[in-house]
This record gives sequence, C-alpha cells and structure tokens, in this order.
Amino acid sequence: MSLITLLTDFGFEDEYVGVCKGVILGRNPEAKIVDLSHAVDPQDIYQAAYLLKAAYSYFPTDTIHMAVVDPGVGSNRAILAARFANQVFLAPDNGLLTGVWGGNPPELLVRIENTDLYLKPVSHSFQGRDIFAPIAAHLSLGMDINELGPTLARDQAVTLTLPAAESQDDDRLRGQVIAIDHFGNLVTNISATIVARVDPKNIVVRVGHQTIVGLSTSYFQAGQGQALALIGSRQLLEIAVNQANAAEKLHVSKGDTVFITFQKTP
Amino acid sequence: MSLITLLTDFGFEDEYVGVCKGVILGRNPEAKIVDLSHAVDPQDIYQAAYLLKAAYSYFPTDTIHMAVVDPGVGSNRAILAARFANQVFLAPDNGLLTGVWGGNPPELLVRIENTDLYLKPVSHSFQGRDIFAPIAAHLSLGMDINELGPTLARDQAVTLTLPAAESQDDDRLRGQVIAIDHFGNLVTNISATIVARVDPKNIVVRVGHQTIVGLSTSYFQAGQGQALALIGSRQLLEIAVNQANAAEKLHVSKGDTVFITFQKTP
Amino acid sequence: MSLITLLTDFGFEDEYVGVCKGVILGRNPEAKIVDLSHAVDPQDIYQAAYLLKAAYSYFPTDTIHMAVVDPGVGSNRAILAARFANQVFLAPDNGLLTGVWGGNPPELLVRIENTDLYLKPVSHSFQGRDIFAPIAAHLSLGMDINELGPTLARDQAVTLTLPAAESQDDDRLRGQVIAIDHFGNLVTNISATIVARVDPKNIVVRVGHQTIVGLSTSYFQAGQGQALALIGSRQLLEIAVNQANAAEKLHVSKGDTVFITFQKTP
Repeated sequence: MSLITLLTDFGFEDEYVGVCKGVILGRNPEAKIVDLSHAVDPQDIYQAAYLLKAAYSYFPTDTIHMAVVDPGVGSNRAILAARFANQVFLAPDNGLLTGVWGGNPPELLVRIENTDLYLKPVSHSFQGRDIFAPIAAHLSLGMDINELGPTLARDQAVTLTLPAAESQDDDRLRGQVIAIDHFGNLVTNISATIVARVDPKNIVVRVGHQTIVGLSTSYFQAGQGQALALIGSRQLLEIAVNQANAAEKLHVSKGDTVFITFQKTP
Repeated sequence: MSLITLLTDFGFEDEYVGVCKGVILGRNPEAKIVDLSHAVDPQDIYQAAYLLKAAYSYFPTDTIHMAVVDPGVGSNRAILAARFANQVFLAPDNGLLTGVWGGNPPELLVRIENTDLYLKPVSHSFQGRDIFAPIAAHLSLGMDINELGPTLARDQAVTLTLPAAESQDDDRLRGQVIAIDHFGNLVTNISATIVARVDPKNIVVRVGHQTIVGLSTSYFQAGQGQALALIGSRQLLEIAVNQANAAEKLHVSKGDTVFITFQKTP
Repeated sequence: MSLITLLTDFGFEDEYVGVCKGVILGRNPEAKIVDLSHAVDPQDIYQAAYLLKAAYSYFPTDTIHMAVVDPGVGSNRAILAARFANQVFLAPDNGLLTGVWGGNPPELLVRIENTDLYLKPVSHSFQGRDIFAPIAAHLSLGMDINELGPTLARDQAVTLTLPAAESQDDDRLRGQVIAIDHFGNLVTNISATIVARVDPKNIVVRVGHQTIVGLSTSYFQAGQGQALALIGSRQLLEIAVNQANAAEKLHVSKGDTVFITFQKTP
C-alpha cells in the first residue's frame, strides 16, 4: 500500500502540489505519487467526481486516491476516508466520491478526526497540505482506515446529484455534455450500455447544430474535420471531430444538451 | 539525501524538464524528484524567490532544491550551492535564494567550480541540464557541498531587495500584491505577524476599488462571490473572493498596492 | 531496465496521463516514470519527432521511451517497438521515430502483435492506456522486444519527411522555424554543424522583418529586448530576444522561413 494519486484544482503555477508531495515524502520516503490531474476547474466538484470515477479502476489494489477539490475548506465540512473496490479514497465530504461508488455503498466509510496525524498548525485555507497529505502518507505506511476516526453510514455523507441521461420516450434520450477533454472531445453522460441496445447504424446524435448518424468505432473513421460519435475510453458516448477540436468547431460547451434518437430499421 | 525538487521557468511544452530528470537519473537512478513548479514567469527571479521561500520548509531534511530561473545563463554569473535549515539549495547567483534565508546567513555557501561533474559540452543556454542537474545528482548521492568549489561569505552573493510592507504611520501600512495564485487569490507581502498585533475585526484592507473590513479565517466565511481577506497558507495576508477569481473580479495585478488600516476600537 | 519516459499530446486536464501511469505501475510497481512532455500540439507528429530526437540521448541506457501522438488510433496502423542507441522506443507507426534514428537504421524493429499483453477490452480511442502502457511495463520488467511481435525492416515503417535546410547557393541557406519553445525562442532546422564552417561573426540571419548579424554564444550577449541568434541546447540555430518572447516580438510562427547568408570576410 504505497501508491498515492493526487487529484486537485491546485494548478501548476504555485507551490501547492509540490508542498503536498514534500509532506507525504517526509512521512513516507518510499511513497510513489502519481498526479491524476491538478487542472480541475477551481471548486468544480462535479468535474472531479467524473474524473476520479473514470480513473480509479486503472490503478493497482490498495492505491490511495487523495482528491482535494474543496470549496468548503476551513468550514466544518467533514473529511472522509473510504475503502471501495479494494482501493482507498480520501476527500472532503462534498460529494466528490459520488462518481466512484455510484449506487454501491463503500465497504468502509470514516470521518477523519485523528488530529494527532495533522501537520500543525492546521491552515484554514490549505488542508491539502496540513490534513490530506499527512493522512495519505500514513495510509500508505499501512495505517488502518479505522484509526482515522468514527465510522459513518453512507447516507451520512454528502451525495452529489450527477445529471443522468433521461429517456424522453422509447426512441429518444436526452443527455448532456459533462466534460470537454484536452482534445476538445465532448464527453456525455450517456453510457455505452444505454446505446448498446440498438444497432449503432441506427443511432442519431444531435448536439448544437450538428446531427451525426451512426456510431463510429474510432476517430479515424470520419474524414478529417468531420464530426463523429463514438463510445470513448470512459465507456461514455463522445462527440469528436477527427483531428480537430469538436468543442470549438461545433460551438458546444460543458452542460449543453445532447439528444439521441434510435432510428427504427425499416 | 536523495530527494530533489525542481523549480524552474521551463514550462511544460518542451523537453527541458524531462531532460534534466534524465540527466539526474542517469547519475543517480534512485533519486526521487518532485516538481515544485515549472511555471514561474520567464526570468522572474522574484516570483521564484517567493515560491521557494513558501515551499522549502515542507520538505524533509537534506532535500536538495534545484532552482533554475536564470536570465544570466551563459554569462559569468556564479552558480551557488548552499546549506540552510538542514536543506541544500542550488541556484544561480542572482538573488533567487534571498527569500529562503531572509535575514539569516546560510550555514555554508559555495561557488560551484568543480567542472569535472558537468555534462560536457556545457551549453551556454541550458545549464539546468549541463550543470545544475548533474550537481544535484551528485549531492543526492551524498557528495559534500565543499567538494563543489570554494566557500563564499554571504555578502559575496547577490541579494534581491524583496519589497517590504512599509508603515505609513502607527495606523497605516502599505504593502503590495507579490503573487496571484492559480485561484486568482492575491498574495501580499504583509506577514501574519504584522497584522497579529491588532484585533482582526479592526483591520481594514484596501486594494483596487475594494475595501474589506475585518479578517476572515476561511474563504467560506464570505458569501459566494464576496471579497475577503485572510492569512493564507504562506502566512501572508491574502485577498480572495469566495469561489471566484479575485484578480479578475477586483481587477488587480501583481505589483498593485495594498493598504491596511488598523481601526481604533471605540 | 526500469525507467520509462512518456511523450504524448494528452495534456494535463484529463485523467489520460495518470491512468497510463496506473496501468504501468500495476504491472511493474518498481517502474520509474518521467514525463517528457504531454503538451505536444494535438496530433502533431512532427513536433513529437523533433522533441524526442532532442531528448532521448540524455536518458540512461535501456530507458524505454513511450511516445503516443497518434492521429490514426483505432485504424489498422501498426504499433512499433524499436531498439536504437541502447534505448527502447515505443510509438505508433506514423513516422514519430524518424527524428530519433535519422539516417541510421534501428538495431531492431518489431511490429507489436502480442495481444496477450494488452489491457482488455482494448479501446479504439485510447490505446496509450490499453496497449502502450502495458507493453512499456513489460519491457521495463525485462521482456525482450522480440517477444512483442515479428521483426520489420526499416523501410517497412513509415518515415516522415522532416524539412531540411536547403542551400540556395554557396553563400545562402534557407531553413525553417520548426518549433517555438516555452520562452518564445525560435528553434530552426539549421544544425550547428552547417553553420560551424564559417566564422560566426560572418553569419547573417533573417527571419520575419529582423536581420541579425553574427552569432552570440548566450542570450545575455544581446541587450535586453534585443534579438540574437545562437546555437541552442538542441544543437540547432535558435533566434531569441534577450529576456523576452521572440515569437511575439518578431511576429514569427512555426513553419516560417529563415534565411542564412554567409558574409565573405573582406
């Protein structure tokens, strides 16, 4: 148990990420630390929740995921540690972990109260450094989650309402662009399993002023500069433009609506 | 002695940072390397000095801090190695270490002249790769600083004049915004100890067109979108806007003046 | 054999880089991973080819370079593993490795077909995670390249035509800006060896509306804000502006033409 991932909205300009690593390595010089992302939009818990959901299962058993997107830092919001799917999660109690466990309860959920482990004095504005980093280090040294504080029931933790794709009727589905990735690809909240029930040729995707008929299996199948829809690496429906930035080309933003129609085969 | 931090203005687009790491790991495959920041504004020694000052003490004993913001690269400016506060610092002799040691002299200060350690041929434009990285590697292998070159007295090294907050009179203080962080928070050069002498309720902060009465202890205490002042994680007075970017909202830039008035309790 | 570098166009916003590291560390917990760059312009194979060429030789023997800039992901383009100059390279068969081996053939070149090693199910849009990362991990564990698939002759792999500097006549050379680095320095395709044949004082460089007479040896030799030409750290002719951004100051873009004239000494 010595791999720690970091997911924050701290950015790259300041000392914030480096200092968290310094605190971790001061307590566990053998810790391996991987940056998941530090470019979450400031205070965007939803983006962090989607990102962690997409990422965690690719890490080995017992990885510790330290996620600090924390608009309530310094308030009396709790800090949580959880065990789920053979991994360990550390996050403020603001719903950030909702994406990870979805409908399933965590195996163990604890409110962190073991102040002996904190770096003192604890700042009210940078608890990533003073609480999360030292706790992550101790977990990576093998400390049991139960030593961190009292057990909570799942419904005692905050849950985010992540927007779900909605059926309009048997033939229509309404979803939303939940993320725009580095390439400008539009990631939706429409899962692969939902669209799997019909022939991919018969799926019509509408976003902005663009209509796309049929799903592709790779970006390459559309002509250069042409829009396409496919099941992306997150197992979610994505809209892309081959070798271009779909968000810019199609003038679509995070939160925009996506419609899916299942054409009847004649 | 095997943890090395890197602080540069090299950015992320090029091979510069990666190549420094390659050189370090070629000489010490066991070195642990942590990025402090590579997004210092090009050639901004002051920003680097503040950042290193804010960060170094969070790293374990014997950490080696390699700081390369070096407008004089290729000139005859010296390169320094120093021992201070149980850590090791490597930087061009341009004042970058002024923030770290402040009024205290380094325990040991050396001008690097041991050319045997350099990567040859030494480039005139990229000495991070050819001098700093190999020296950092050898230090991380346990080489004594004294083996790098002759000892200097502190006053033989360049010192930056970091702007200090100035008392206007007993009740007024004039400081400056020295950094704008990733969140848009305005970090000033007014230290926690200066404002600690009065009741936080009686402190009035003025920056741009904004007046803030009283210090908060966390971002959360102001309403969403409201400006506040607090002692930030660097133990400096910060001006923030809760869940927004203060620099943008308040139209404030690096270098702008901040006034503090200590209200008399009636 | 346990150092792995990553060169991609994945950016920093998403989970893409972190997830590749998770997959690598899941298979080889001892792997050391260094980021070369993740800020290659999306799908810009040329930029990646130049960057890898500039970087690889600074890494220790047996380093594994995993380069994923892959506009053809999901098509039937091959994926290559190669041994060259005592290092190992992993890249799509799109010419990305052209810069590395230049006129010299790789010592061993293999088309990856050992699907047993892949992470299943293999995505059509993210083979960095599902193919490259696990292969890199197995190579770092000591797997022989020959176990990955059948040997190819060099001419069975795609070669990029990297634009070469052209002699106009004995006294004139026409080159091109192939990269603009983080500092705004203009990196050309004119190599140090080409300009080495004449006295540096007699070299005249023209780019945009700027004429520079003579080569400098460091940025510092020009006055602040003055343009200069020098042999940069890649051993290529570079045009810079001392303590400023040359691309912005001189209004020059990637791909722009650079003329060199060799003045006759009177």
